[in-house]
Amino acid sequence: MNWTRKHLLDIESLSADEIRVILDTTRAFKAVGERTIKKVPALRGRTVINLFVEPSTRTRISFELAAMRLNADVINFTAETSSLTKGETLLDTGKTLEALSADIIVVRHSAEGAPHLLSRVVDCSVINAGDGAHEHPTQALLDTFTMFEKKGDVSGLNVTILGDILYSRVARSDIIAFQKMGAEVVVSCPNTLLPDEWQPGSILGQQTGFENLEIARNVDEAVEGADVVMALRIQQERQEAGHLPSLREYSDRWGINSRRMAMAHDGALLMHPGPMNRGVEIDSNVADGPHSVILPQVTFGIAVRMAVMSMVAGG
Amino acid sequence: MNWTRKHLLDIESLSADEIRVILDTTRAFKAVGERTIKKVPALRGRTVINLFVEPSTRTRISFELAAMRLNADVINFTAETSSLTKGETLLDTGKTLEALSADIIVVRHSAEGAPHLLSRVVDCSVINAGDGAHEHPTQALLDTFTMFEKKGDVSGLNVTILGDILYSRVARSDIIAFQKMGAEVVVSCPNTLLPDEWQPGSILGQQTGFENLEIARNVDEAVEGADVVMALRIQQERQEAGHLPSLREYSDRWGINSRRMAMAHDGALLMHPGPMNRGVEIDSNVADGPHSVILPQVTFGIAVRMAVMSMVAGG
Amino acid sequence: MNWTRKHLLDIESLSADEIRVILDTTRAFKAVGERTIKKVPALRGRTVINLFVEPSTRTRISFELAAMRLNADVINFTAETSSLTKGETLLDTGKTLEALSADIIVVRHSAEGAPHLLSRVVDCSVINAGDGAHEHPTQALLDTFTMFEKKGDVSGLNVTILGDILYSRVARSDIIAFQKMGAEVVVSCPNTLLPDEWQPGSILGQQTGFENLEIARNVDEAVEGADVVMALRIQQERQEAGHLPSLREYSDRWGINSRRMAMAHDGALLMHPGPMNRGVEIDSNVADGPHSVILPQVTFGIAVRMAVMSMVAGG
Repeated sequence: MNWTRKHLLDIESLSADEIRVILDTTRAFKAVGERTIKKVPALRGRTVINLFVEPSTRTRISFELAAMRLNADVINFTAETSSLTKGETLLDTGKTLEALSADIIVVRHSAEGAPHLLSRVVDCSVINAGDGAHEHPTQALLDTFTMFEKKGDVSGLNVTILGDILYSRVARSDIIAFQKMGAEVVVSCPNTLLPDEWQPGSILGQQTGFENLEIARNVDEAVEGADVVMALRIQQERQEAGHLPSLREYSDRWGINSRRMAMAHDGALLMHPGPMNRGVEIDSNVADGPHSVILPQVTFGIAVRMAVMSMVAGG
Repeated sequence: MNWTRKHLLDIESLSADEIRVILDTTRAFKAVGERTIKKVPALRGRTVINLFVEPSTRTRISFELAAMRLNADVINFTAETSSLTKGETLLDTGKTLEALSADIIVVRHSAEGAPHLLSRVVDCSVINAGDGAHEHPTQALLDTFTMFEKKGDVSGLNVTILGDILYSRVARSDIIAFQKMGAEVVVSCPNTLLPDEWQPGSILGQQTGFENLEIARNVDEAVEGADVVMALRIQQERQEAGHLPSLREYSDRWGINSRRMAMAHDGALLMHPGPMNRGVEIDSNVADGPHSVILPQVTFGIAVRMAVMSMVAGG
Repeated sequence: MNWTRKHLLDIESLSADEIRVILDTTRAFKAVGERTIKKVPALRGRTVINLFVEPSTRTRISFELAAMRLNADVINFTAETSSLTKGETLLDTGKTLEALSADIIVVRHSAEGAPHLLSRVVDCSVINAGDGAHEHPTQALLDTFTMFEKKGDVSGLNVTILGDILYSRVARSDIIAFQKMGAEVVVSCPNTLLPDEWQPGSILGQQTGFENLEIARNVDEAVEGADVVMALRIQQERQEAGHLPSLREYSDRWGINSRRMAMAHDGALLMHPGPMNRGVEIDSNVADGPHSVILPQVTFGIAVRMAVMSMVAGG
């Protein structure tokens, strides 16, 4: 199939075939990062603007390096949400960046749907680098790519996601992507984080926004026989708002450690979107252990972003 | 005529011929931003340093992209005024940047005359990106260029500027540039912002620093028959210092809206240096309406800065 | 001799021969900064990441320009120590940067030994850009290079260093480098900054970490007959902690001025690592006088960093 989209806004609207095309292109770009001269001329002379209204050094750097390796000119525009709302609307900022002849705007924003809104008013390409609690599509694509690289396929894999599912854009994009690619997804998180209709033991249908999502009764049940275990980063804000138990209790009950990792399949993968809170959601002996593919995730992230940028800009 | 200046410090010292040479060069660079590969080798291997002692994301990005498109290496040096004055003088910073083999220092500073001072101690080129309430020459050049592009000429145009004229470096540079190019300039602003000798209805002579500047009695009179209407950004600091009425009153009495825009000539241009405070100095229906050339101003800004950088550096 | 090191972590572990090789390579790169097109392809397509966990605009810019002139892709990763320790360990950050296919990590950190620690866990090159009160090796190399350029040799020179020796990484790296190259080093500083065993008039042996370091009884004695006088930047934190007298008293007793500079040899060099506190540790008439080589130090800094980066990355 041919890629025809000008934007990458979310995983939800992508077909499984479109995801596969992105992953195929990613495979081609993966080799670039392994060379001494890590450059290809795919986007030579194009302009990429990283519009980060919510701070994120790692994601910004990954996009920045991806753009540089494609030979694009890349500029960082970081703003406080407050100053943006005070001085200028997001749409005015977007129109201004377009007027600067931007080819791609990479946008990170604390408001759900901000990239979609932006894509409706500008003629250049928009890539969602995380919008509120909604989606973080390039993270899901790099996670999916990691699973393909390390397990050969995603179809039929049992994938377990641990942590604050409901408010994590990573979880949301991951669940949608993994299910589209044919994985069985099970999640586990503290009950205090679940709405009434989502109860441990239930299997959620489409009306919740997820199809066939199983809520495990506890972490042990969730991890049992898993092919992939993904620990999400604990969100300090949620902790402070009283929605989470103490860090020690969280670690005991939902953290991934060697005892729990041993319950997964022999060749199971351990994933984490980073940065890790060692000793909280993930123990050091598994983070640095043989199951861990956390650093390959980072490496593949650049290749995925090179693929997405070159595809949306038609490079 | 030949361009011989090493610096661009202000509009005041430029002749009309020099302004015309910059605009001619700008025309050549305008095309670069419209290409897929937005690069020319004019400043390949040169070093441009953006020394921004006062924050300004938009102006900094415009210079940064302009330098990149000329194939220069560009570095951002942003500093708080306080830390600069505490640790090191502006001149020491400038000498240090020169010692780093900078070819061009682009300087934004809260103190009037800072770029002039700098230009006297360094051998490299200095471009003023805004100094206090004094001048912002590249903004005036892009505004003048916009008028040439959209109206064919500036000579004979009636140009109206609305807002805090006295403390706006944009207004100062614009008035000087437009008058040099032969426009008739009228301004209007709240009386509380005017010094005693500047009263509505008066026409200022050279002793005020402006030649033949007409102070309109009110906005309606100022806008009547205008070929160009420029709304300045309201300065929050001035608001807080009690020199401005409430935002609502400001909008009612000095804001530009569709009723007032209808009083201007049919093909009149509406300009704004950005970022806009929609609903305050400018209404959304005119900001996004057929008269507005606010986004072309942004686009032409890069071309003007490419022209100025390549001219001062002799590229 | 051949250069075989993958990292530049400190001066202490370098042999005099290794220092000489770096200075020879620096000589070759010095010419690049003097050209119109200041670029060489030595690190084309490589990735340099500036990991600055402690702020330093000047050092960061010097490394950034050096990387650009070698044609590398360069990214800035600045972090607050607090946020790094809260969210992620330095080692996790380093492993992440390595996973982004960084070829060189340039690290500035408030903790002594941070670059050494990092170099043990990553496969890419690590360059120390200053670690706590420990070392700042590229500063010492540029200071040594400046002495070679301006005096022909370092061997046999009398070098005087004035200021807070004990807590200055610049002083530490400088003393070690100058002694390795055969200079006689004398220091002078307020008694309140000296530990009990270090008393004015004493000559320190290796057990203090310095070999044959002479503590002068006062600045006049220290400067008398010096070939090189280096004034260190006064550290405001030390001032605030009550370890230093008033700025006026400091200037009177330890500042370098024209009277004291006249006591040095006729062709003596005056050096300062910058940024200067004029009127405190250094008077303007000597800072800008004929002995001063403060700006050449800045210029040579880029050449040294180009040399070091190209050598550790095997470019």
